[in-house]
Amino acid sequence: MDTQAPEGISLAVSTVIFALRPHPVTGLSTLWLPLVRRTRDPFAGKWALPGGWVTPDESLSDAAARNLLETTALEPTYLEQLYAFGDVDRSPDARVVSVVYWALVRAEEAERAAEGDNVGWFPADELPELAFDHNAIVDYALWRLRTKMEYSRIALAFLGETFTLSELREVHEAVLQKPLDPANFRRQVEGTLVPTDHVVTGGRHRPPRLYRYDESIELVHNGPLAHA
Amino acid sequence: MDTQAPEGISLAVSTVIFALRPHPVTGLSTLWLPLVRRTRDPFAGKWALPGGWVTPDESLSDAAARNLLETTALEPTYLEQLYAFGDVDRSPDARVVSVVYWALVRAEEAERAAEGDNVGWFPADELPELAFDHNAIVDYALWRLRTKMEYSRIALAFLGETFTLSELREVHEAVLQKPLDPANFRRQVEGTLVPTDHVVTGGRHRPPRLYRYDESIELVHNGPLAHA
Repeated sequence: MDTQAPEGISLAVSTVIFALRPHPVTGLSTLWLPLVRRTRDPFAGKWALPGGWVTPDESLSDAAARNLLETTALEPTYLEQLYAFGDVDRSPDARVVSVVYWALVRAEEAERAAEGDNVGWFPADELPELAFDHNAIVDYALWRLRTKMEYSRIALAFLGETFTLSELREVHEAVLQKPLDPANFRRQVEGTLVPTDHVVTGGRHRPPRLYRYDESIELVHNGPLAHA
Repeated sequence: MDTQAPEGISLAVSTVIFALRPHPVTGLSTLWLPLVRRTRDPFAGKWALPGGWVTPDESLSDAAARNLLETTALEPTYLEQLYAFGDVDRSPDARVVSVVYWALVRAEEAERAAEGDNVGWFPADELPELAFDHNAIVDYALWRLRTKMEYSRIALAFLGETFTLSELREVHEAVLQKPLDPANFRRQVEGTLVPTDHVVTGGRHRPPRLYRYDESIELVHNGPLAHA
């Protein structure tokens, strides 16, 4: 390895933020993500994932959080690294490697986020043509989210501290885009849940019970990196 | 996002290559990895993961493959991206972000690799103090390998095209570092295997049958990125 690094590669970060909101046509709970409209070339006028450059004095995840806050006012409690995208031709005028982070936020957090001429929320499966390779990045993030939903407890990130079994199932249905059998679903998740002493009030004859996750089971398996 | 990227961040790649070889003391099948001795500061004389700089005209995975070939003569058929390590202080004199790749190779491939004064193979769980944050990187790679072994068919990378159930179980035992019950193991993996018409010859009374993986099931779930 030569002592001197070659020049000419710039390092950027982008983030994919998913939230569940009603679909504008069907009204069904659907995955949405925020995009930022580019005001400069390349791709001036196109929508892109929130992001920006990494400065020499910040870690990758700090850079991702800072750029996300600056562009959308979103502050997810935890950003997870998704993948580093480094194809030679992914940016037309320069060689840019982007380390992409992702996070899930609850609908309330999403609503607090800035929305204006240059920030907008879009249904994740119905995006316009984005700048750079950002459509491919979103496709990969959607695939990872859906895969992870099958074997981890990532759905929790969309829910409050307590939730009914129906609410949990609806999150899974919205992400996986398919109906799930309530009885089967209950059997699959029951071992990871703790029933609380509370029910949903509102005068129903059989008010549904509230559950919380068993905190002795890890939410996201990130191993020795934990929150790196 | 400013037009101009800040200067002062260098981009490197490193690779973690795992192979199974007998442990020097116990003789049991154990995970090993190749390291390269640094000939320059920082960390001159210390062992480090094979790697080097990314040049502007090559993708991240091409850079990882080139640096691996140059330092160790290893050419794994497939490198998977592991994680981008970017802590501010991970290199003493410069800001270096390293995108780390990993691969599993069969013992025969490992034996073809260069070994000399400045390249050596080490049992992965008994490493010396490495340069930079490379001990932490290996810990993370070991954790990912062991986790992935539980839910994917990654063990195949250590085996030939056909194998006996005992050989497959021994790979799992070597990686997970624990004995597995043969009958339980058979039940767990049987659905992903196809029995061949062949057995292991050698005059035994009940020669063990050779299996291959069901190729209709994906080996590594990498989704839309496939071999990016």
